[in-house]
Amino acid sequence: MQKQMTSLQEVNPRVRGIRLSSQSGLHSLTENITKDIIKGTPQSFKELIDVSLGDPQRAGMKPISFVRQVLAVCLCPELLSDEHLPLDVRTRALRLLEACDGESVGSYTDSSGLPYIRQTIAKFIMKRDEGVPAYAKNIFISSGAQRALMVIVKLLSGGEGRFQTGVLIPQPCPHKLLPLLDEAGALAVPYQLIEEENWAVDTSELGRALTTSRGRCEPRAIYISNPGNPTGHLQDRKSIEKVIEFVASERLLLLIDEVYQDSVYAPNREFISYKKVLFEMDEHLRDTVEMVSFHSLSCACVAECGLRTGYMEVVNMDPGVMHFVDTMLCTDINAPVTGQIALDLMLSPPSPGDPSYNTFVHETLLTRATLAQNSQRALKLLNDLPGMSCCPAMGGIYLYPRLDLPAEIKEQANRLGLEADVLYCQMLLEEEDLIIGAGDNGTSGSHHLRLCILVPPDTLEKRFCLPEHPPPSSPAGRVTLFLSQLNQDELHEGDEPDGPWD
Amino acid sequence: MQKQMTSLQEVNPRVRGIRLSSQSGLHSLTENITKDIIKGTPQSFKELIDVSLGDPQRAGMKPISFVRQVLAVCLCPELLSDEHLPLDVRTRALRLLEACDGESVGSYTDSSGLPYIRQTIAKFIMKRDEGVPAYAKNIFISSGAQRALMVIVKLLSGGEGRFQTGVLIPQPCPHKLLPLLDEAGALAVPYQLIEEENWAVDTSELGRALTTSRGRCEPRAIYISNPGNPTGHLQDRKSIEKVIEFVASERLLLLIDEVYQDSVYAPNREFISYKKVLFEMDEHLRDTVEMVSFHSLSCACVAECGLRTGYMEVVNMDPGVMHFVDTMLCTDINAPVTGQIALDLMLSPPSPGDPSYNTFVHETLLTRATLAQNSQRALKLLNDLPGMSCCPAMGGIYLYPRLDLPAEIKEQANRLGLEADVLYCQMLLEEEDLIIGAGDNGTSGSHHLRLCILVPPDTLEKRFCLPEHPPPSSPAGRVTLFLSQLNQDELHEGDEPDGPWD
Repeated sequence: MQKQMTSLQEVNPRVRGIRLSSQSGLHSLTENITKDIIKGTPQSFKELIDVSLGDPQRAGMKPISFVRQVLAVCLCPELLSDEHLPLDVRTRALRLLEACDGESVGSYTDSSGLPYIRQTIAKFIMKRDEGVPAYAKNIFISSGAQRALMVIVKLLSGGEGRFQTGVLIPQPCPHKLLPLLDEAGALAVPYQLIEEENWAVDTSELGRALTTSRGRCEPRAIYISNPGNPTGHLQDRKSIEKVIEFVASERLLLLIDEVYQDSVYAPNREFISYKKVLFEMDEHLRDTVEMVSFHSLSCACVAECGLRTGYMEVVNMDPGVMHFVDTMLCTDINAPVTGQIALDLMLSPPSPGDPSYNTFVHETLLTRATLAQNSQRALKLLNDLPGMSCCPAMGGIYLYPRLDLPAEIKEQANRLGLEADVLYCQMLLEEEDLIIGAGDNGTSGSHHLRLCILVPPDTLEKRFCLPEHPPPSSPAGRVTLFLSQLNQDELHEGDEPDGPWD
Repeated sequence: MQKQMTSLQEVNPRVRGIRLSSQSGLHSLTENITKDIIKGTPQSFKELIDVSLGDPQRAGMKPISFVRQVLAVCLCPELLSDEHLPLDVRTRALRLLEACDGESVGSYTDSSGLPYIRQTIAKFIMKRDEGVPAYAKNIFISSGAQRALMVIVKLLSGGEGRFQTGVLIPQPCPHKLLPLLDEAGALAVPYQLIEEENWAVDTSELGRALTTSRGRCEPRAIYISNPGNPTGHLQDRKSIEKVIEFVASERLLLLIDEVYQDSVYAPNREFISYKKVLFEMDEHLRDTVEMVSFHSLSCACVAECGLRTGYMEVVNMDPGVMHFVDTMLCTDINAPVTGQIALDLMLSPPSPGDPSYNTFVHETLLTRATLAQNSQRALKLLNDLPGMSCCPAMGGIYLYPRLDLPAEIKEQANRLGLEADVLYCQMLLEEEDLIIGAGDNGTSGSHHLRLCILVPPDTLEKRFCLPEHPPPSSPAGRVTLFLSQLNQDELHEGDEPDGPWD
């Protein structure tokens, strides 16, 4: 038989070099277990519980009714006359349809999005930032925040060897970030977040990372996630100012993932945008620091991950360079119009007095309360378990506990060529039908889990049990037992175990 | 003031090298005219008529009710109990919601799409190809056919200078194809379609293009659009067999854009897929020729361009290489779920007896009739104009008339550094508020227009007038007059003009 035309050796070396996150290794295992569940294989639970990804609706969180109702009318304009739907839903749908070419969501839009919705975004930003000006021309709607980030990273990329573009990225970081840089051809320059300070950004660590990267690449940008994915850390004004001074002195482009800006739940803390802080600093910074901020439908309260839309706002970028942002977005033609409309609804929700206002407020408050409550309960549970310790989060939708694994697990992982926390997640999945994300292992050598806490309140209890009511023989107690047993072997050697179930 | 961090000179050279289509040059002019119309500037028409893009709903074509109703219910499941909606709409929506993770369109899906919908696609292909097997595992859903094509081209790309990957592309070709190859880093190797044979593909021309490309690049794939975009040419079995034999002997990967497979309207002609032809050829071809076929929601009858979803089917590709297709799709995370659902509805429409069947059939027949009728009328009109000649189309949604421009226009274009047909389109836009696409000028030096004919029947008459009823003083006659006047200068020099308005 003739050899195949496209052999593995001929695949673009850059594509071959994309390092998928450890999560993808768990994926096929998950598929097999799902098949077992469908078949009803006796040893399986009735369902898999997946808290590895930031996918709240998959976990059972409900969408915002106003968003879904307006979308339904936009798709099916015969519903404009359906009096079962609130009036503000129908008037909003009509206005949005008028903003679409051909008054249809089935038409293409400009590659940077519908002008009307870019205006809505600009108004939202100005209101959020208490008057700092924002302009529609600096806003680009994309098929998700990740696509927008890809556009900017590709724009900056280029060079080989010591001239290759470098991008400073936090450790830990969102699990899709490393493959994105690989594909774009940029070198990841990791800086460590400080776990002892609840995963704070430390500018001296940024300096260290930058200095050691010189000679290996040309560092040109820094990526920061605030509130942190997956750490839940929220930067305060002072911390943001320090970062801005650092990037100004080092002439870096600031890439700010602010996707979880709607999810700050720590008492007496609130989200403040990098742009607002920048515009309240000295004029020479305000006029020169280049920044791109990303936001998305896949945030906490709206959480419409499946609609695949986000946007970026570009600050202080050369107009000639911005032209190429548009060029790059052309590859996608445009973000899906359904998602663009959902962005408009998310950023310009019903006002007091509107028929949909009360429901909207009720639904978002419920999400926020769930997030805050789950975070507190999961934190206590995790910290009560032997071999686990977790920093409190202030926002975002994850917890990121540290795992002190027994030596056997580490050795077994070594033999299998896996990271120890990936092996641990595989075991959790196989024995408990519970999908938790493995940590983003880096130079530090420590092990962590990534746990999405934006799930309906009873989800955590289905497998984890609360310390107050340990039912160790029920499925709900099994993870806990499993965790304890894993750690017992190590604990036998020295101290007495101190967890509540030992 | 400090120099900006990201200067134009620092933009990724590959991004700087992306050649946008001539259409983008018309875009800012269009925006200005739109502003004039909104302001009510006296010299303007009441609306721009845009027939430059394949965007039927923008031009006023209606969506398929079944698709929109099911989508509305999926987005807003409270409509499941709305008895105004047909029962099959609601049962289908329920089934599709069950196929989504968390039973919500707001959840992520696998990067290659929902398994249930990949199955639907496989069934559609098998039915279309009269039993040739198709497998869900070979089908990848993407954010549009263009994104799918980008994934494959990137996978193949690599190398510099004479080792750079080359892709054979037709001349003329879809206007987004060249920027796509530029961005992926592949070299476009043009082959000329034969205008005298209604834009047929000629394998000896393919051979010529391939031979002359060797030494300049490593040609690894060939792109073919069938039915042709923008030519409307439909290949028959014999022509397809010849291409397959050519790619097999030259060891090229076949990239087949079959997006307009639903739009063949020439009498006694029907679409036959490359895959079906391949599977009815010799075993050694069937088992070895590598092929990727692309299809999309942005086709003729459904035409949901704004929903941004398409798919590709991969044939005879090394499983190791296919793994990287999935990796590359991860960059987009997944295609929008609304679009994935619309794909399911497009490829598995209502059956006879279903409550929505009659409406569905009526709507698709109307679209097909409009397409056939418009094509015939526009063809006659264009061929009746002086300085214009147009090949008949057999499918697709475009006509691609040739333009014999007066010498002054060519000289003026030269002075302005524009292609003459782009200048001509600018003039049409400024003087007639009519947007027509400029041709894809190539080595041949001829000039053409690209004209989408999938528009409501009265659209063409708004500016073009029918030969039977020429109202030369009305706006409807002005393009015709304009075209005639443009050509009169040249015609003065020799023959008498032969158009009906001269």
